[in-house]
Parts: sequence; structure tokens; C-alpha cells
Amino acid sequence: MKAFSKEFQAELKNLMKWRRDVRHFNTTPIPIDILLDCLNAFGMAPSVGLSEPWRIVRITSDKSRGAALANFKSANADALAGYSGDKAQTYAGLKLSGMNDAPEQIAIFCDDATTKGAGLGAKTMPEMRRYSVVSAIMSFWLALRAQGLGLGWVSILDPIQLRNDLGVPKEWHLVAYLCIGWPKQDTLTPELEKVGWEQREPALTQWIER
Amino acid sequence: MKAFSKEFQAELKNLMKWRRDVRHFNTTPIPIDILLDCLNAFGMAPSVGLSEPWRIVRITSDKSRGAALANFKSANADALAGYSGDKAQTYAGLKLSGMNDAPEQIAIFCDDATTKGAGLGAKTMPEMRRYSVVSAIMSFWLALRAQGLGLGWVSILDPIQLRNDLGVPKEWHLVAYLCIGWPKQDTLTPELEKVGWEQREPALTQWIER
Repeated sequence: MKAFSKEFQAELKNLMKWRRDVRHFNTTPIPIDILLDCLNAFGMAPSVGLSEPWRIVRITSDKSRGAALANFKSANADALAGYSGDKAQTYAGLKLSGMNDAPEQIAIFCDDATTKGAGLGAKTMPEMRRYSVVSAIMSFWLALRAQGLGLGWVSILDPIQLRNDLGVPKEWHLVAYLCIGWPKQDTLTPELEKVGWEQREPALTQWIER
Repeated sequence: MKAFSKEFQAELKNLMKWRRDVRHFNTTPIPIDILLDCLNAFGMAPSVGLSEPWRIVRITSDKSRGAALANFKSANADALAGYSGDKAQTYAGLKLSGMNDAPEQIAIFCDDATTKGAGLGAKTMPEMRRYSVVSAIMSFWLALRAQGLGLGWVSILDPIQLRNDLGVPKEWHLVAYLCIGWPKQDTLTPELEKVGWEQREPALTQWIER
């Protein structure tokens, strides 16, 4: 049985602490071998019935990047309109995407129509396929941070519009739009906490028993 | 900026490789301090708008464990009825839950009605709250494995029935039922691959460009 040292366990905790959602990137390109190495985290992630439903779309063309940015701007303006007073002011000041700077941008889809896995584990909970994709993204995120790279998960987007703009199959459901690059600064405090949008719960995890 | 060593990066890869979905457990109890330590991975996970929507229900009573097991048995029989021929035979022989043996069983819900985070990032993609919960589960899974513990994610369940049986708020949506314990054996090969249910893709991650 493969055992992991106390030192590794402690450093894994540090990795989780230092994993932040990054929105401020340097524009320095990421060497392709580092990106590839981190992307291999997908192949090691759990997936329901071994369905491996993740579909990775690397956004490289000006046209696709422009469409994604316009999509974000529109969704963000809509979201801002839903707040008022102080909350609206704080929201307007937030940097919610790194799409202007992040050298790598990757859209991650879930192929809801895949026959791989033959539906095992997804009958009563078909959302398990999308959850598998999220598990893979989380693995990728940690792998990136271990290399010093930051990731920002953009969800202020119209997912159908993005799918259409990218011309991917209609069975593919957008799970995440990821901005990736070297972070401008490193911090243990989420930006949303810094600007007073929301506080994290104290460290001790709460649960109920049944 | 916190840097991680090459050795740590390599060991993180090992952790991801050795993280398996475990269904065969020893019944030896898990010391509470180890469980608590691993549960703290939840507090370090990303969540949309800092909404931290995870709700943790530790299943300790015979009544709750019995209800969950009955739920699984019924959903599993339904699922089996959907297969025929060889696939049905293989399915019938699979061990798809460790609910009889796993010393710790934890149901994880997403509070879809939380006001924490004020809806940030969840307007066009409200599923982001559930994805946040999945990210936390994945972090927890890796923390457990670093301690030598195995986790099995059971999704062959009627989620509404389980929520009702556990008597938790109706705004809580079941994301996962987790069986946790010391694995009976350690392997790099998923059981579904061993029995010929499905193959994993070769390691090299595929993508398309747009």
C-alpha cells in the first residue's frame, strides 16, 4: 500500500490553503509542457462509471476569446443590475474575470450524451457526469497551483451562447470557463473577503448527525 | 509566493493516481481527529461567491444507515433491470457500495437556498453552488487518501428519498453519499476496468482548439 509522509500531508494542506481563485494574471505564456503535465490530472480524476465525460476546449483564436469576453461582459452587466446600494458598488469594483490577461483560457464541457460507462451510477443522479468533470477540474487546479500557476473559474457567462459561439456539439454542457496564468500576487485571503463581499466560515468544519 | 518542490509535485501526482473509488473496507473505526483533520479540507475548498454551500450529515444511527442501505438496494435493483445479457451479468457482480462495512458514512448536501455569497457568480449558472460542493468533496477525498483512507462515492440512490429519510431541509440537495474507511486492498486499477465494464482513456489528455 502506497503511504504518504507526514511532510507530504502538511504540504498538501498548504497547497489547499494557497489554492486561490485568481483574477489578476501576468500575460507571460505558459510553457506547453507544464500545461500538458497539469492537464493530465484529468485522466487521473474519478468519473462515474469510468465515463470520463470531460471535453476540453482550448480557447486560442481572437474570435473565440472575443466571443467569450463579450459573453462575460453582458452577463456581468445583467448581474450588476440585480444588486443595489453598497452591494452594487462593491460588485462593480470587483474583478470577476481575468479574460483580458490570462495567457491560457480553457472551456470545459461535460458530454451528457456519452455512452462511455454505460450509464453506471448515473440513473438516479445523471448530474454525476457533470460532477465528475468538476472533480477533474479541481484536480487540475491543484496541479496548476503546485507549479505556481493560478486559475480563475469564470461562471458569469451564458453557457448556451458560449457553446454556440464555440461551435461544439449541443450535447456538451458548459461546466467551466477557466483563466490560467502566473498570478500577479499570491495571497491566502480570497478577494471577496478582502473587499467585504462575504466572509469565510471559521476553519472548524460543522456537521449534523443523523 | 509560496512555492512547492519538484518532490511534492511528483508525490501529488502519486496521490492522484492512488486515489481510487473504494468499495471494500475494513470495519476498523477511524480516529475522530483524523476524520476532523480531513473534513477541514471543506473549509479550504473554492466556492462560488464564497457561498460555502456544503452541508455535512454524518450518518451514525442504525435507522439512518438502514434507510440509506435500503435506498441503495432499491435503486440498484432498478438499475440492474436496465441492463441485459453480459452487461447485466457483469453489473450484478459489481460491488457498488461499501455501506455494509464502511465505518464512516457521510451524506453531503448543497444548500441551494443559502443567501451566503449574495448570488455572486450563480445567476446564469446556479449549478455553481453544487459544483462548489463537489470541489470540496474532491479536496476531502485527496486529504483522506493522503492519510491512507479510502472513499467510495455512492450515487445509486434516490436523492429525494434519502433527504426525506434523514429529515434535512427540503432546500438541501443531495450531492454525494460517501463511504469512508481503511481500504481492504490498494490498487492503481479501477474495479470497473478490472471486471471489463469500461476502459480508461490512455493517459494523454485530448483537447480541441477554437
